[in-house]
Amino acid sequence: MKVAIYPGSFDPVTNGHLDIVTRAARLFDKVVVGVFDTPAKALLFSTRERVDLMREAVAHLTNVEVKTYSTLTVDFARTEKAPVLVRGLRMGSDFEREFEMAMMNKQLAPDVELVCLMARAEYQFLSSTLLKEAVQFGDSSKVENMVSPAVLAALKRKFGPKAAGKN
Amino acid sequence: MKVAIYPGSFDPVTNGHLDIVTRAARLFDKVVVGVFDTPAKALLFSTRERVDLMREAVAHLTNVEVKTYSTLTVDFARTEKAPVLVRGLRMGSDFEREFEMAMMNKQLAPDVELVCLMARAEYQFLSSTLLKEAVQFGDSSKVENMVSPAVLAALKRKFGPKAAGKN
Amino acid sequence: MKVAIYPGSFDPVTNGHLDIVTRAARLFDKVVVGVFDTPAKALLFSTRERVDLMREAVAHLTNVEVKTYSTLTVDFARTEKAPVLVRGLRMGSDFEREFEMAMMNKQLAPDVELVCLMARAEYQFLSSTLLKEAVQFGDSSKVENMVSPAVLAALKRKFGPKAAGKN
Amino acid sequence: MKVAIYPGSFDPVTNGHLDIVTRAARLFDKVVVGVFDTPAKALLFSTRERVDLMREAVAHLTNVEVKTYSTLTVDFARTEKAPVLVRGLRMGSDFEREFEMAMMNKQLAPDVELVCLMARAEYQFLSSTLLKEAVQFGDSSKVENMVSPAVLAALKRKFGPKAAGKN
Amino acid sequence: MKVAIYPGSFDPVTNGHLDIVTRAARLFDKVVVGVFDTPAKALLFSTRERVDLMREAVAHLTNVEVKTYSTLTVDFARTEKAPVLVRGLRMGSDFEREFEMAMMNKQLAPDVELVCLMARAEYQFLSSTLLKEAVQFGDSSKVENMVSPAVLAALKRKFGPKAAGKN
Amino acid sequence: MKVAIYPGSFDPVTNGHLDIVTRAARLFDKVVVGVFDTPAKALLFSTRERVDLMREAVAHLTNVEVKTYSTLTVDFARTEKAPVLVRGLRMGSDFEREFEMAMMNKQLAPDVELVCLMARAEYQFLSSTLLKEAVQFGDSSKVENMVSPAVLAALKRKFGPKAAGKN
Repeated sequence: MKVAIYPGSFDPVTNGHLDIVTRAARLFDKVVVGVFDTPAKALLFSTRERVDLMREAVAHLTNVEVKTYSTLTVDFARTEKAPVLVRGLRMGSDFEREFEMAMMNKQLAPDVELVCLMARAEYQFLSSTLLKEAVQFGDSSKVENMVSPAVLAALKRKFGPKAAGKN
Repeated sequence: MKVAIYPGSFDPVTNGHLDIVTRAARLFDKVVVGVFDTPAKALLFSTRERVDLMREAVAHLTNVEVKTYSTLTVDFARTEKAPVLVRGLRMGSDFEREFEMAMMNKQLAPDVELVCLMARAEYQFLSSTLLKEAVQFGDSSKVENMVSPAVLAALKRKFGPKAAGKN
Repeated sequence: MKVAIYPGSFDPVTNGHLDIVTRAARLFDKVVVGVFDTPAKALLFSTRERVDLMREAVAHLTNVEVKTYSTLTVDFARTEKAPVLVRGLRMGSDFEREFEMAMMNKQLAPDVELVCLMARAEYQFLSSTLLKEAVQFGDSSKVENMVSPAVLAALKRKFGPKAAGKN
Repeated sequence: MKVAIYPGSFDPVTNGHLDIVTRAARLFDKVVVGVFDTPAKALLFSTRERVDLMREAVAHLTNVEVKTYSTLTVDFARTEKAPVLVRGLRMGSDFEREFEMAMMNKQLAPDVELVCLMARAEYQFLSSTLLKEAVQFGDSSKVENMVSPAVLAALKRKFGPKAAGKN
Repeated sequence: MKVAIYPGSFDPVTNGHLDIVTRAARLFDKVVVGVFDTPAKALLFSTRERVDLMREAVAHLTNVEVKTYSTLTVDFARTEKAPVLVRGLRMGSDFEREFEMAMMNKQLAPDVELVCLMARAEYQFLSSTLLKEAVQFGDSSKVENMVSPAVLAALKRKFGPKAAGKN
Repeated sequence: MKVAIYPGSFDPVTNGHLDIVTRAARLFDKVVVGVFDTPAKALLFSTRERVDLMREAVAHLTNVEVKTYSTLTVDFARTEKAPVLVRGLRMGSDFEREFEMAMMNKQLAPDVELVCLMARAEYQFLSSTLLKEAVQFGDSSKVENMVSPAVLAALKRKFGPKAAGKN
């Protein structure tokens, strides 16, 4: 059985992430989504919330599990006995940084294979950062096709009556 | 009447920004410079100061106004009834990020057109960040051709007797 | 009256080009599409054919004209008394080359302003080269949303019974 | 059974290509290497030679086959009933072009998944073009770690006594 | 006598930095490594520690000195009477930012020549940031070929019994 | 004595190339400009002409010699007993290709050091290709600050009465 991990912050999960998980779940026997549990980074959602939103988003995918991890990504792959690490590439990605990480991971864990999937055209320019700004300063109804209803509701709760009221 | 907005932090306005405003003012009937009023970002100058320096810089341009805004940029465009949003591109720009923002803006406001002007050769490598470092650690006389006298004076006041004394 | 030129090879015109012309026609009073008449470059369509296909594509835009030119682009702008040169930027563009040309143009004609419009998300990855390969080796029905019916018919004629027969 | 194709010109196959095939053969049940049979492109080796050198290179990989194709790559994938198309990415790749092709492929064949593997650090900068130049103008002994002995011998035969004599 | 400076944060010095110093020491009569003494940036090691680790790393290079500086880099070059400023370029570098700094430096100090050396293939993807993450979250034994034993020991002390214990 | 080579096609030499030679001549004891003598590439000027124009351009630099070569660049360096190979980097450069060549050179000749100098701001966007187009289709008087009078005259002779007549 071929297992793959799909690691990230997912703050929050977008339809772009979900598309990558769905495609990875077709390629491999099992996909473990790894939600990085980091105390350092300033995130909008708690680890708990990010895991819950992800779990709901992938509930219909029978070969996908969601877990948290706080180790090196390649060590998480090993814990999960996953020889494959999946990443989504977008045009908005920093390719030099992607290569840097890929080469460092290869050095740390030569046995873990990095598999890159390219985001679909409609998600090429969708970043969690811009999504949050759009909801915070704008009108959440405009991002309905970028996130699930549950994530949209969660974003509105975070940004309070202002964003919620507009919709 | 065709109105364009030119949004930014302008911390502080440089000759590169001024060049873009001047050219935009020739292309469109009216240009509204939007100084982003953000509590979050760590800026050197207050919103008040950034607006004042910009106002002085564009005083000679009769079809340019300076305003602040704290909403999404595309919503500022709508408030100003401006169908055009102007941005300056420099070689030092992060193009992937520019495209990301452009596509997100198009999604949020399909009716607002993004018009990109390329910085002149001599301003291609002029960033506000490097400018501030140059004045802070160096000798402000060397950046005289990058900012107006008023901005230079303001920078010297910020960085105190050290920078001021050297000049 | 503000006139803009929109120069290119247009071999053949795609929906991506048409989108840029349409948007330019909203920004400026008149747009002159300049079809570059080059003996050197190996193109699929003759200058005549490229002009005809472009003329049909923009027939509904009342302030757009189509002409050929064989001079420097900035000299074509001057002949047309156009202070503006429009270019579409796609993620697939070679930005360094774009900047190189922009700076060279500025040197040759400081009075001509380059205005860049960003391709819409669905046309970000549409190049004439890939389009031709798709029709030549594949099935032209799949590119129906990338070109007009007239262009599709012209492409099928060029690539003969094989491409035509499949559709 | 999950089948993947790995298409290319392979003019000639390098250790970088071989590394990607080897890794793909671990990820999928079967890998079909597709040697593009193109009359147009000026290549050093004939299709026959490129296939033979590839076949020798992958002889030890039991789940790898080598075929030629002269259709669209996605149509080759379908002929082979392969839902996966593998590409190797190197730092020397033209990412914008890669994305362009990926999005065009997705449009032409939404059911074929593109899987990108990143070249190992030692092959990041190895291109067939530079390899051929090195053998042609230089000393073939220096590229022994970049190609198999059979490929090195073939390169020496192509470039005649000069290159052969030096080694 | 031709003197060059090689400035940086060196938090901590890696084998990639050491490779650049070594090569610069062959090109020029004397190399002064400038350790930037910055109160602002959040670094792992103190200026004192960064200088000590660098001194140990270059102890065998007789024409290399290590100093700290807290001025503009070009002013440090002048203080050292060095007409040359050396930088290492990696594929992971942000080239636009490099050019921006280079052009700003040229403006501030036209007499200081920037000389860029390209990192060796094995250090192209080695960044101090990823190195620290690898030691902090992982197993320091895996980065033994990236830093000197002294630097490895220092990293283990910083990250405490966890990292130290694993090795 | 430290010798450096500065290789290229120089078709023809521009003020950007001359700036790099001049700066290299200050850094090293002797600079040998290597004009690549290639039968394959379609160039405007013959090897003879390119050498002559370069010789005239560097006549005032006492430690610069001009030679032709038709071997690998690193072998030319060795023939000249030059441990240094100089290249100019422009924003318009293809960095991935530069790195590819640099790494290949390092593999072929580990003892030859690549030294990159960054083009001055005013030459960042000056390419021989665009220069030739400007003279061919335009007005040679506009490129007077990009090449020497001798090169300008040579360009006018190549492009005949049309270009010559305009000036």
